[in-house]
Amino acid sequence: MRDLEPFFNPKSIAVVGASPKKNKLGNILIENIQRAGWRGKLFYVNPSHSRIGKSKCYANLSEVKQRIDLALVAIPALAVKSVIEDGIKARPKISNFVVISSGFKEIGKEGKRREEKLSRLAKRHSINILGPNCLGFINSKAKLNATFASGGFKSGKVAIVSQSGALAVALLDWAKNASVGFSKVVSIGNKADLDESHIINHLIKDNDAQVIAIYLEDIKNGREFVQAVGKAAQKKPVVVLKAGRTEAGKRAVSSHTGSLAQDEEVIRAIFNKLNIIVAENISEFQNLIKLLSSEASPEKKEVIVVTNAGGPGVLASDCIGKSKDLKLLKFTNDFRKKIKKLLPIGASEENPIDILGDADPDRYKKALDRLSAKYKEYPLLVILTPQSQTDPDQVAKIISRHKDKFSSVAACFMGGVKINKAKNLLGFNGVANFDSPGIALRTLEKVVRYRFGKSKRAIGLREQPSIAKVSPCIKKALGEKRKVLFWEEVNDIFKKYGLPLAKSIIFDSLEKLNTEDIFYPCVLKTNDPKIIHRWEKKGVILNIQDEEELKSAFQRIKKSTNASRFLIQPMLKTGLELIIGMKRDKTFGPVIICGAGGTYAEILKDRLILIPPLGDNEIKKKISGLKIYPVLKGFRGESGYDLNEIAKILLAVENMTFENPQVSEIDINPLMIYNDGSQAQILDAKVYLN
Amino acid sequence: MRDLEPFFNPKSIAVVGASPKKNKLGNILIENIQRAGWRGKLFYVNPSHSRIGKSKCYANLSEVKQRIDLALVAIPALAVKSVIEDGIKARPKISNFVVISSGFKEIGKEGKRREEKLSRLAKRHSINILGPNCLGFINSKAKLNATFASGGFKSGKVAIVSQSGALAVALLDWAKNASVGFSKVVSIGNKADLDESHIINHLIKDNDAQVIAIYLEDIKNGREFVQAVGKAAQKKPVVVLKAGRTEAGKRAVSSHTGSLAQDEEVIRAIFNKLNIIVAENISEFQNLIKLLSSEASPEKKEVIVVTNAGGPGVLASDCIGKSKDLKLLKFTNDFRKKIKKLLPIGASEENPIDILGDADPDRYKKALDRLSAKYKEYPLLVILTPQSQTDPDQVAKIISRHKDKFSSVAACFMGGVKINKAKNLLGFNGVANFDSPGIALRTLEKVVRYRFGKSKRAIGLREQPSIAKVSPCIKKALGEKRKVLFWEEVNDIFKKYGLPLAKSIIFDSLEKLNTEDIFYPCVLKTNDPKIIHRWEKKGVILNIQDEEELKSAFQRIKKSTNASRFLIQPMLKTGLELIIGMKRDKTFGPVIICGAGGTYAEILKDRLILIPPLGDNEIKKKISGLKIYPVLKGFRGESGYDLNEIAKILLAVENMTFENPQVSEIDINPLMIYNDGSQAQILDAKVYLN
Repeated sequence: MRDLEPFFNPKSIAVVGASPKKNKLGNILIENIQRAGWRGKLFYVNPSHSRIGKSKCYANLSEVKQRIDLALVAIPALAVKSVIEDGIKARPKISNFVVISSGFKEIGKEGKRREEKLSRLAKRHSINILGPNCLGFINSKAKLNATFASGGFKSGKVAIVSQSGALAVALLDWAKNASVGFSKVVSIGNKADLDESHIINHLIKDNDAQVIAIYLEDIKNGREFVQAVGKAAQKKPVVVLKAGRTEAGKRAVSSHTGSLAQDEEVIRAIFNKLNIIVAENISEFQNLIKLLSSEASPEKKEVIVVTNAGGPGVLASDCIGKSKDLKLLKFTNDFRKKIKKLLPIGASEENPIDILGDADPDRYKKALDRLSAKYKEYPLLVILTPQSQTDPDQVAKIISRHKDKFSSVAACFMGGVKINKAKNLLGFNGVANFDSPGIALRTLEKVVRYRFGKSKRAIGLREQPSIAKVSPCIKKALGEKRKVLFWEEVNDIFKKYGLPLAKSIIFDSLEKLNTEDIFYPCVLKTNDPKIIHRWEKKGVILNIQDEEELKSAFQRIKKSTNASRFLIQPMLKTGLELIIGMKRDKTFGPVIICGAGGTYAEILKDRLILIPPLGDNEIKKKISGLKIYPVLKGFRGESGYDLNEIAKILLAVENMTFENPQVSEIDINPLMIYNDGSQAQILDAKVYLN
Repeated sequence: MRDLEPFFNPKSIAVVGASPKKNKLGNILIENIQRAGWRGKLFYVNPSHSRIGKSKCYANLSEVKQRIDLALVAIPALAVKSVIEDGIKARPKISNFVVISSGFKEIGKEGKRREEKLSRLAKRHSINILGPNCLGFINSKAKLNATFASGGFKSGKVAIVSQSGALAVALLDWAKNASVGFSKVVSIGNKADLDESHIINHLIKDNDAQVIAIYLEDIKNGREFVQAVGKAAQKKPVVVLKAGRTEAGKRAVSSHTGSLAQDEEVIRAIFNKLNIIVAENISEFQNLIKLLSSEASPEKKEVIVVTNAGGPGVLASDCIGKSKDLKLLKFTNDFRKKIKKLLPIGASEENPIDILGDADPDRYKKALDRLSAKYKEYPLLVILTPQSQTDPDQVAKIISRHKDKFSSVAACFMGGVKINKAKNLLGFNGVANFDSPGIALRTLEKVVRYRFGKSKRAIGLREQPSIAKVSPCIKKALGEKRKVLFWEEVNDIFKKYGLPLAKSIIFDSLEKLNTEDIFYPCVLKTNDPKIIHRWEKKGVILNIQDEEELKSAFQRIKKSTNASRFLIQPMLKTGLELIIGMKRDKTFGPVIICGAGGTYAEILKDRLILIPPLGDNEIKKKISGLKIYPVLKGFRGESGYDLNEIAKILLAVENMTFENPQVSEIDINPLMIYNDGSQAQILDAKVYLN
């Protein structure tokens, strides 16, 4: 674990590329540092100048000969490497660098090579490099603005980690209007060395960061990221806005499972498992930051709505009605009576409390007083539209005074010029205001989900054991340079893990077949690993009644598929088809897929992605998210299915995966399950090797 | 059709309840009228005053004895009726009233009775009443603010119709900040007389209204609404924000079809058929108004994105990638080369064009010039974040100058204080600015869908013929006060309409059954209209092989269900199950449902709601929206199904519905269709009567 305390909290900084010329990066950096109020020693480095203003300017880092905690590098890309090398050689050695300069990976091959040199340098000499191609960072507590973003910043509770400098700039500027403050803003740029995981690990212990908000385009190290962000989310809310950039859709699809689990969905599953709050877009990212930085910490899922506008109140109910997580709080009869007495005729004492269009500040106050006395644990949303009788500023003050009397308070002042001042007042007092009830409630919903999803479990991906026992059948297949196991081999290894592969008879010609072993009706299938989609290739013949039918079926299947290996299975009774699979995500390692099977599987995309390590409870909770869950539970008078049996199979797949790292993909399709007590059976399965 | 021209464009207005006291409604109304610049004759009416300011104040309307085009009524609810009666008796008669007063339907029973009297008054005397419990209306062209909303308004292209006065107030105030202008704002309140349909009909011919934006909580007359809004949407974009307030979920469910089509879904289907732009929430409503009032009229679905910020550019691509309607425009190689020459190293000449964080206004200009020369039909989105080198105001001016050079231009300036002025500049020049690329693109997507969905067809609901021929079997059932047709009756009427009910033998005791008619294997079912969910009630026994099995099955079914009527059908081979139904929506009349059948039907909610009159093409287009459509078309090597056959059955259901108004509901479940050339068969059907 790196110690980034000296990096983010330096006592001395050198600006390499310091310049007296306005609008030069090296000048903006100096100005930003000086303006923000950081108290430390600042050194200028630039061979073209001997002085900048009244201060000495050094030709290079090693010339300084004093302790430099952090070097900000803002010079042409070509010169960056030698500057860092110089810093490493300097005495005392410089261990922390921010490379602002662009001209690296983002410009193509040549830049990429340049960047790789920086990465190697960092690793070899155990130094920290932020960037290149980044904005720098801000540390509010240290009053340090080590970025080239002008315009200052507001100190506060939110730590921002952004892979896009431009987005960080926009957030810094937005925050001033939105009255949101930041504890740290870290632009991670191209991540040649320091990446999101390092920064998050630092922020976990950083008590100034009460909320962590991250914009990411890719994840550099899946395992470290999961470890860091999972730990972080146990201590404080973590909001992630993830851009796609996925090429997954384009890649050739060689199996069901492969096509079922695409990268973005894996990331979703990971975030879900770790209780990360996922923002769908920049606006939602901002709204979440706003609500979380207002210290909203809803203790209940039932919302209270107070409004002076009927229509928006109705829209708020609609939105809560559609929500999976939120409910509208039901008041007691007694409470309703009390509220009714406070309000004029025509007002609604039901939730949403409609205090009518002519409501003055006092009516808002009375309602909020009464509510906070009885229902303080519940999240509150106060809606206002500026009628002629409305006094938005006074109402804003009243809401602000009630902010700490509820577990969560949000406002929705709708309008424009008439509410501008009130919005500022709300912001100043740390009350989040949203443009519409729908936006307020969707934001609240995600925060509620986070609060109720908090777990104390240790978080991390399951480790692949360092020494794997290689199953003999896999060894044999690898020896023959095969990428797919034969049926017999699948049978062997599945048996070992208790995976119930249907009883099958393997053969290559009818003559060698002992027909006495066959029970009718039966099924004849090709058993040629090269024939992947048997069904489409007419490689399956069902419901064969006797030996004669089997002979004719054999002739047909041989002719139509040209296969040389075959198998016979008993014709199983129809049950519910599931599909279960495993694939190895290149960032996060093995993921397990479970979904509805049959023709509809691909069409309906009814599937889960499960992230090992799995537990019984987690599996069962997850399975309830399947669209066919009502069928699994027992639908319309039919019996339900045994979820323990499904869980056992999923756990077996997990164990097989981790004990056999050479297995790249498992594809069980279908697993037939029954609700009459019969044992589940795997009718078909493929195991792929690396 | 009512002529509302004198209503909205009066030459003389009387304010009933006129008052000299500040903050009284009757005073605010006078002030608003005077301030907005309307040139007409204003009369004050209030028995408590003889003068208001320098003007005479009349005791009542009939005392005026001059032509009054419009009376604004702002007095206690109890007195409203007599004031209107006085106006009707006045000479010249007053035909137009706006009742601002509250205290009607919204306060409960007593108010409702009061309101019904107003409705009857309006009908009897052919007068127009807007309200009660409304804000009034604004007509920008006449400079008339006949509302009690203070703060003035901006003239423009958007007509607002709102069932919530408070929402109209919020929109008026918002519009000033957003630089959106309104041609008319009409608050329809409780709709005692004038409703949304009357106003929309007026707005169709109103050339000042280039966009119609409607907020609705309920629809008063479905047929008139469909007629009006359908006609309107053919001429200009119509945006609707519809609040739910549906009780549908709660009502008892007596059949599949009943539970399948709920009110909100019917409204969605209607809006979809009429090419109405549906806003999901207030923010989206505002965003759509903003983009449409900027005259965005995208001629293509392929978007161009120009950005100075990498991250937001990536998010824009993601959003377009996920869109069903939008695509990212692919530039020609030649064009890419030209763009590359204009831009510095590291910039992206691919769409999104990333002109880099240090882009100055000139770089934006060069890119837009080049784009508009070649790709002017395509919608453009320009993204900006305020880096230190950025000049947002100048870039705003450049975008404004390019506004008419593309079919649609939207901006996304992200930030806060640094971009405030630029946002105002954009607004002033009629360029819509959005808070994030995602919001901009989702708004654009809906506008694109509208533009490409425009049709020239006449729009309206199918009319029920005034004289219906009553089928003999229905007459008989009605005579016996039955609510459900017997199987034989269903068979009769289905035959008439060509609906392929499976061949069945009806009987009540085994003895009377001619066993020679039975083909095995067969199915035995109860045929008792009281047993609705046969399957759960064990009223179906499948796959009976011979007479002996039939006898034993008969004993079992009789015992378990206590039914007295039965039927036998041939055991059909398995095909694809569909469910088809009809229900009469209380607002919009008959709607037809088509969806996936079987156990999964209810779970997966894979269904369409079709609004008669249906056409072959419309049905086929709609069916492509079913989740199981890939199966219908032929999936994974299987043959497809005959869509014409499905269409024929849907049309037959439609015809049966309209020719038999006594049929309240039809429930066909399942319709078994085949992809081997076999004819479709209806295995089970229920026909309910009014």
